[in-house]
Amino acid sequence: MKFARRMSSVHRSFIREILKAAVDPGIISFAGGLPNPRFFPVRELEEATRKVLSSDGAAALQYATTEGFPPLREMIAARYAARGTRVRPEEVLILNGSQQGLDLVAKVFVDPGDVVLVESPSYLAALQCFGFFEPRFLPLFMDSDGVCVRELTAALRDAEPKLFYAIPNFQNPSGISYSRERRREAARLLAGSSTVLVEDDPYGEIRFMGEDLPSIRACISEAGSTDSSVLLGTFSKIVSPGVRLGWIVAGTEIMERLVVAKQAADLHSNELTQRIVHRYLSDNDVNAHIQRIRDAYKRQRDLMVSAVKSLFPPDVSCTEPEGGMFLWMTLPQAVSAMTFFERSLERKVTFVPGAAFFTSGGGENTLRLNFSNCDEAMIDEGMTRLARVYSQMPGA
Amino acid sequence: MKFARRMSSVHRSFIREILKAAVDPGIISFAGGLPNPRFFPVRELEEATRKVLSSDGAAALQYATTEGFPPLREMIAARYAARGTRVRPEEVLILNGSQQGLDLVAKVFVDPGDVVLVESPSYLAALQCFGFFEPRFLPLFMDSDGVCVRELTAALRDAEPKLFYAIPNFQNPSGISYSRERRREAARLLAGSSTVLVEDDPYGEIRFMGEDLPSIRACISEAGSTDSSVLLGTFSKIVSPGVRLGWIVAGTEIMERLVVAKQAADLHSNELTQRIVHRYLSDNDVNAHIQRIRDAYKRQRDLMVSAVKSLFPPDVSCTEPEGGMFLWMTLPQAVSAMTFFERSLERKVTFVPGAAFFTSGGGENTLRLNFSNCDEAMIDEGMTRLARVYSQMPGA
Repeated sequence: MKFARRMSSVHRSFIREILKAAVDPGIISFAGGLPNPRFFPVRELEEATRKVLSSDGAAALQYATTEGFPPLREMIAARYAARGTRVRPEEVLILNGSQQGLDLVAKVFVDPGDVVLVESPSYLAALQCFGFFEPRFLPLFMDSDGVCVRELTAALRDAEPKLFYAIPNFQNPSGISYSRERRREAARLLAGSSTVLVEDDPYGEIRFMGEDLPSIRACISEAGSTDSSVLLGTFSKIVSPGVRLGWIVAGTEIMERLVVAKQAADLHSNELTQRIVHRYLSDNDVNAHIQRIRDAYKRQRDLMVSAVKSLFPPDVSCTEPEGGMFLWMTLPQAVSAMTFFERSLERKVTFVPGAAFFTSGGGENTLRLNFSNCDEAMIDEGMTRLARVYSQMPGA
Repeated sequence: MKFARRMSSVHRSFIREILKAAVDPGIISFAGGLPNPRFFPVRELEEATRKVLSSDGAAALQYATTEGFPPLREMIAARYAARGTRVRPEEVLILNGSQQGLDLVAKVFVDPGDVVLVESPSYLAALQCFGFFEPRFLPLFMDSDGVCVRELTAALRDAEPKLFYAIPNFQNPSGISYSRERRREAARLLAGSSTVLVEDDPYGEIRFMGEDLPSIRACISEAGSTDSSVLLGTFSKIVSPGVRLGWIVAGTEIMERLVVAKQAADLHSNELTQRIVHRYLSDNDVNAHIQRIRDAYKRQRDLMVSAVKSLFPPDVSCTEPEGGMFLWMTLPQAVSAMTFFERSLERKVTFVPGAAFFTSGGGENTLRLNFSNCDEAMIDEGMTRLARVYSQMPGA
């Protein structure tokens, strides 16, 4: 028995291992990336299921087309239109969570040794997923307005990258958002290149401060460029992750190949939950629902940011995201976030040490805090414990 | 924009294109591989959903573990035990349909150029799925008792195959089942090799004649060999395909890698439907339900077999499967199944020409007929139309 060569370079997700370790209900976890289950529309989904099964039971339970349930694709396109982005229903492919889009895009584009540009730090499960296709990752520095233009320019010019993977809204893990100007600049650079933009936007609708900004994909289209970008979205943060429904937006040439890859990978996405979510979105005021999530997450984010400011020394900083689910904390260079993690776990608080999010080392003094999945009392208590552990840290 | 090299050798599924063409409700389709929706437990699944959401709504809608819902894995293991096969729950990984298992296994094992042994003919979507990993397919001849031992022996000895992909029960497309003796012989040969068996068993529980036979995997285990085989199963044929739930059984060493691959591909399978199907299986007599499916499919199969015998000339033959969903028809060498297909479509009956199921040409005079998804009147009418078209075929 001999495994494929690609298996020598892939590993289990450190985060998911942490999550498994942290099932002890006494632990306060800032580690995961879980939405707050308080906002899962349980009763509404039950009602939607009843309607779907009583009106279209046989169709909902049968094999279906690879592309996805047409009315759901139309609804996704309509939701983009309402936010000012032109997307045609046939440009939408329904996925088992947007994570699957990363796998399909990598399969369609990446040969071993191809360069993939990634933000530094970047989303761990994307690095893991791309890793199966044996690319060379080229990490690009991020400042508070998004990816560094100088580095992106040089990389597009010199490295012949196949893909640029970006999360412009409230990035996981850093919480950084691209400014309007930075989006336009990135779009301009990408439009003049042969590199495909993979724009991941799981949190775009969870903006609780500031103004909505266009996707980089929309900026590329405005520049009149041919369509060499894909945009990923998900129902995980606005409805529920357990239904595993996301989507990818792509033009004809890329879409054709994505559909073939999806067909080979699992034939099609869960038809029953596609119809349930479609029914749910049709029958309920989902925008009001999203507003409630935003309001709660904003309170939780505010509380966590002010805890960092008030309970930690001034040489500890954090990002102040305008949406999403994560803060990024930077400790003084001399302090090890891994040691901080181990000691915090003893006091039953967890987070994710930042080093895991970098492809080429670094970040040993950084960490990611999730604020979406804890109520305010737990954030108070957890941050107080963290500050107490921190005060005993060597180098702090 | 430049696609990966693997994309030059993959194509859309011919069958799925046929299925799309055949949405005209006037068409009698023997083309698809659809279970009969009459047997979807619509009301029972509605009831199961109600229970799951009212008792564990938040957990059912949240992110979950990659391996799958533990009680469902236990139930699958228990169902194997009831049929005499020892499977531990931790050897079961829940998938988005068993098709996903093919993608994960290929990812874990296949480097470009590796040899993959396949039955000839074989399941089209498996060939398509493996194709993304650029193997060399080595097709093995099948007789009425399963894969040809002489060819398997030679291939294992000479070709260093990574995988052997087999469907021992009521194979798709041929309807052939391995005899008990052939299973043992294949197991003995595989146990002495470094080749991994990928045993696909979507139809095993839809046996309506003859006696239940052990999986090849079970025969390998009996031979005391280390665990170098995987076994795929699915709820698509006994509950419903729309819920996209299948599984793969594997030992520790392979399972570890499959879990990493699954995690990267889509984090985990739909948690809501895993719990719904678990609830459904707990609360209902699923064995009685399966027996009803078997009884109906047997009647449909009998009708189709006797139509071939009574309506076609004696030089047209078909397999007489003891279960599953497909017949395989062989026409005289001089008759083109593709021409027969085109003319039949004009008379509004479809099937799948056999050539698509062969990796290295051949089979131009063969075709696959599905008997599960048509009621008896439609089988009568469809077979009568086919026989009429056939009587006008050149060479017939």
